[in-house]
Amino acid sequence: MASVRIREAKEGDCGDILRLIRVKTAGRFRTHALGASRIRKTLGSALRADGFGDNPFYHCLVAEILPAPGKLLGQGIGSKIIKKVAEVALDKGCSQFRLAVLDWNQRAMDLYKALGAQDLTEAEGWHFFCFQGEATRKLAGK
Amino acid sequence: MASVRIREAKEGDCGDILRLIRVKTAGRFRTHALGASRIRKTLGSALRADGFGDNPFYHCLVAEILPAPGKLLGQGIGSKIIKKVAEVALDKGCSQFRLAVLDWNQRAMDLYKALGAQDLTEAEGWHFFCFQGEATRKLAGK
Repeated sequence: MASVRIREAKEGDCGDILRLIRVKTAGRFRTHALGASRIRKTLGSALRADGFGDNPFYHCLVAEILPAPGKLLGQGIGSKIIKKVAEVALDKGCSQFRLAVLDWNQRAMDLYKALGAQDLTEAEGWHFFCFQGEATRKLAGK
Repeated sequence: MASVRIREAKEGDCGDILRLIRVKTAGRFRTHALGASRIRKTLGSALRADGFGDNPFYHCLVAEILPAPGKLLGQGIGSKIIKKVAEVALDKGCSQFRLAVLDWNQRAMDLYKALGAQDLTEAEGWHFFCFQGEATRKLAGK
């Protein structure tokens, strides 16, 4: 079994974080009007500014897996990350924390439930609504 | 039609904000193990600390309605609040913003869609998962 070390992200991790975002959201980026290099530059700058400034918008954990992993599923890496998130949440004075998960990702949903999470969309009917960029600018008159 | 002024919340608004939270979540608070006075004190302190410290966890807008309102529905107050949120989002450099809404609240869902929002739970299958306090503490071993 691989050894997993979970730590706070550093600004130098932004390149790797960006790569993972691009892999996970490849379909969306392909439909974006901007060219790939422009996206890379814009998103990379935003990741640095929003996560590592004086008043960060987001916090990020990095799982370092040693030795270089073969098969990742079933090694307990997800559980370790969730437990670390719980520690960070309590340290920051949070009384709970939330995740967003896609309904086809049954493996993730089963894991979260096994770790004690409640599916608020299933139990109470909560829906995510999103105002994308164009809608936001139109609303703001910009 | 009432006149609506939407402004950033001040620390002095926390009493009114707490009152609204208590009205909206009355069912949940009644089932809470803590006594009402303890909840009021704890939540009131948390609202002040989390919203008005050096590095706030949340931002809050207040809609002041003059003269004192009779019937609130249909006066466009919700639309004005959403537009203000869009302005604040752009000012803070956000490219989009999200809302959580309960599926029985058809009026709110219709309004958000009419203003340009997309229901990501309906369109893509996103679910909210929540680790409540006990689950969080258990995960963190505390």
